[in-house]
Amino acid sequence: MPSRRRVDIVLHSIKRLQRIGATANLVKLLRKQHPADLAQVLGDLSPLERRSAFTTLLDHDSGLAMQAVAELDRDLGVTLLVDRPAEQLARLFAEIPPDDAAALIDRLPGELNASVLEFMRQRETDDVQQLLEHDDRTAGRIMNPEVFALSEDLSVGNAIKAFQESRTVEMVFYLYVIDTQGHLVGVLSLRRLLLVSAETTLKEIMTTEPIRTRADTHQEDVAREVADYNLLAIPVVDGDNKLAGVITVDDVIDVIKDEATEDMLRLAGVPADESVSTSPLEAWRKRLPWLAVNLGTAVLAALVVQRFQATIDQVVALAAFMTIVASMGGNAAIQTLTVIVRGIALGELTWGNSRRALGKEVAVGILNGVVFGLAGAGIAWSTVGNLYLGGVLALAMAINLLIAAFAGTLIPMALRALKADPALASAVFITTLTDVLGFFAFLGLATYALPYL
Amino acid sequence: MPSRRRVDIVLHSIKRLQRIGATANLVKLLRKQHPADLAQVLGDLSPLERRSAFTTLLDHDSGLAMQAVAELDRDLGVTLLVDRPAEQLARLFAEIPPDDAAALIDRLPGELNASVLEFMRQRETDDVQQLLEHDDRTAGRIMNPEVFALSEDLSVGNAIKAFQESRTVEMVFYLYVIDTQGHLVGVLSLRRLLLVSAETTLKEIMTTEPIRTRADTHQEDVAREVADYNLLAIPVVDGDNKLAGVITVDDVIDVIKDEATEDMLRLAGVPADESVSTSPLEAWRKRLPWLAVNLGTAVLAALVVQRFQATIDQVVALAAFMTIVASMGGNAAIQTLTVIVRGIALGELTWGNSRRALGKEVAVGILNGVVFGLAGAGIAWSTVGNLYLGGVLALAMAINLLIAAFAGTLIPMALRALKADPALASAVFITTLTDVLGFFAFLGLATYALPYL
Repeated sequence: MPSRRRVDIVLHSIKRLQRIGATANLVKLLRKQHPADLAQVLGDLSPLERRSAFTTLLDHDSGLAMQAVAELDRDLGVTLLVDRPAEQLARLFAEIPPDDAAALIDRLPGELNASVLEFMRQRETDDVQQLLEHDDRTAGRIMNPEVFALSEDLSVGNAIKAFQESRTVEMVFYLYVIDTQGHLVGVLSLRRLLLVSAETTLKEIMTTEPIRTRADTHQEDVAREVADYNLLAIPVVDGDNKLAGVITVDDVIDVIKDEATEDMLRLAGVPADESVSTSPLEAWRKRLPWLAVNLGTAVLAALVVQRFQATIDQVVALAAFMTIVASMGGNAAIQTLTVIVRGIALGELTWGNSRRALGKEVAVGILNGVVFGLAGAGIAWSTVGNLYLGGVLALAMAINLLIAAFAGTLIPMALRALKADPALASAVFITTLTDVLGFFAFLGLATYALPYL
Repeated sequence: MPSRRRVDIVLHSIKRLQRIGATANLVKLLRKQHPADLAQVLGDLSPLERRSAFTTLLDHDSGLAMQAVAELDRDLGVTLLVDRPAEQLARLFAEIPPDDAAALIDRLPGELNASVLEFMRQRETDDVQQLLEHDDRTAGRIMNPEVFALSEDLSVGNAIKAFQESRTVEMVFYLYVIDTQGHLVGVLSLRRLLLVSAETTLKEIMTTEPIRTRADTHQEDVAREVADYNLLAIPVVDGDNKLAGVITVDDVIDVIKDEATEDMLRLAGVPADESVSTSPLEAWRKRLPWLAVNLGTAVLAALVVQRFQATIDQVVALAAFMTIVASMGGNAAIQTLTVIVRGIALGELTWGNSRRALGKEVAVGILNGVVFGLAGAGIAWSTVGNLYLGGVLALAMAINLLIAAFAGTLIPMALRALKADPALASAVFITTLTDVLGFFAFLGLATYALPYL
């Protein structure tokens, strides 16, 4: 059964059981679910139902309840936890992987955050503290510090024994091999252990110089590395090549999704952390700055139009045609911008081929300019019957489409060169540029050609 | 060393070795690289350099050359293969996993495609054919048909032996357990095998009812399943629950990236399969339809403006202000649209919470309408000094922002209900709507208020 349908059925049952107050059955149903399904269900419930279902589960199976929270949208997870005492939270956070705990604790309001960390220190669960010392969105923040590592001098027989006895998480695919000082010196697959005799030392069969990442590497680069090399996990080392943790592929998948979401939302001028579950007021507050910027830039474009008011006053048809120039430029610019931003994010667009990428976009811009310039001229001529107006529209359209190609390519590239996120070159900025320059080109040319219009 | 810098150094060396014609050294350098790095390098070279480097590598290490092609952008990969004889291609495709081979063969031009498949049939490599029988973008198309499965009656000792002897790929994490008819009945982790005695039968220790997917499931749903449940691989079964193949997490990562790329590009009105390496002419040809649509819709918006030409003729300042209404509506609509489309793609927006999502967007739209309506009124009043013009602008802005919220939410939802891709509701359509209705609202209201303007 597809998981979505399963979740819908569970959702329906939960609502029913809540309505009739059948707590025992509700608990039984909740405890049968996979944490990922529970997270989906919690996300779909109304805020009241969500809080009630979560509290019920927490009372009977705090481990499962916290695992579900770990899978939930972070902001939503925090709302379920934020009104509980710090001591309880410290106990609850110990039930989920340290990277999930760190991400949630980091989002708690200042005072609660501090006291939860204080209680965790008392409980000697300092994994989370360690993670929080690393910057947000780095390998060090998302790694699991409990990494399964063995000494290079160990025999395969003893390694298998150590593996069987280890309490660390289920998800072990690679055995990392360290020297006596804790430096990462090699890697072994579990499979490899099964294929050699028990007396062999790990040193003899390990792959040396394993692919690794440093704790301060950006999570997006880590994700690209894991994806490019088809890894299941990547070891994280500190500046001295000492093994500090491991990032598994399931965390990498989350990073890839989050970074794609962030880019998409940024391109649209939406803050990166908005999701479907963000409250209306917060969503509005967060989108407001971009729309305010857009109001400013729209006024700028309007001022350009106003500057040519005298021209429009003489040939009022210009007011209609100028919108075509702006619209075509805006959409062509969004096309180029999106291809470039996505190319940078996927690592396909590099400094090595950036000149070629610009060449491509400019070529597309010129072709667009010719085709749509002629089409625009045809439209102007056939509706107004003035060949000069057609010429002005064609030229303005061609200029604006070329500007769209240059701006759509160069702005995100420049942002990257400045080490900013290329996706910040959002639709707001790019369409302003094509609006302003489109109006300017069209109305400017029209002013010169006024005697013939 | 971060992989990007490593790739840049290799890239530089390759160009130098090609220039001085040092083929032996070039081969040595190429053969030392990881296929993923080679793919990156090939992507960064110019078309001529790429072809030359690939041919050199193919002559000396066809396996590595083909692995690199498998990691390359598909269209680019095809350009490197398309002018070779079908017999050679059939031999080469046998060197890469069947899912990669199938994806490339599917992109070969018709005649070549047929004769490659014919040669492969003669070589009895029918894995690829099997995959090609499934629809594009389904689990059956991207699975690996060579799945490691064992009978439920086998003992753990024999299972380990079978595992050691198996020739199938390195990437085995789960052992799938089948009954005598080949039905999937259970799953085991490799780790579990090591923790029990050799005489235990698999039936006793396997997890029954493993998470699985059907061959006809869309790859996006498969990816969501693997990501939600943190799986390393998912077994694929046919309609009778017979084990048909396996999809590993590395393929899932590719799916997640591709689907995110597709959504981003579609929202921008770019065909989903464009990448940085697409040729200018092809990119232009592919983006053309959307821009042509946009020309049509822009003309529509212009016709609305033209309809109110008499109004503008009397108060020419309206031409400037109408662009503000359109621009604000367009950008607010793109914000809403993007949040909704991404929410659907991530599985966060479901039928269960869609009414709440609409409510949120409408609330945001109303808040936007009030704030920016007032701001617009202030701007109009302070620049033109006419309170009525301010009122008209405020009302038109509020109406258009509300329309933006409704359209940005309902259009992608309606597309999903019609089983179409919600991302088809691209910026082109949505901005047309806000342009047309924004102009209509503003100029329409202005016409009524004309005596006071």
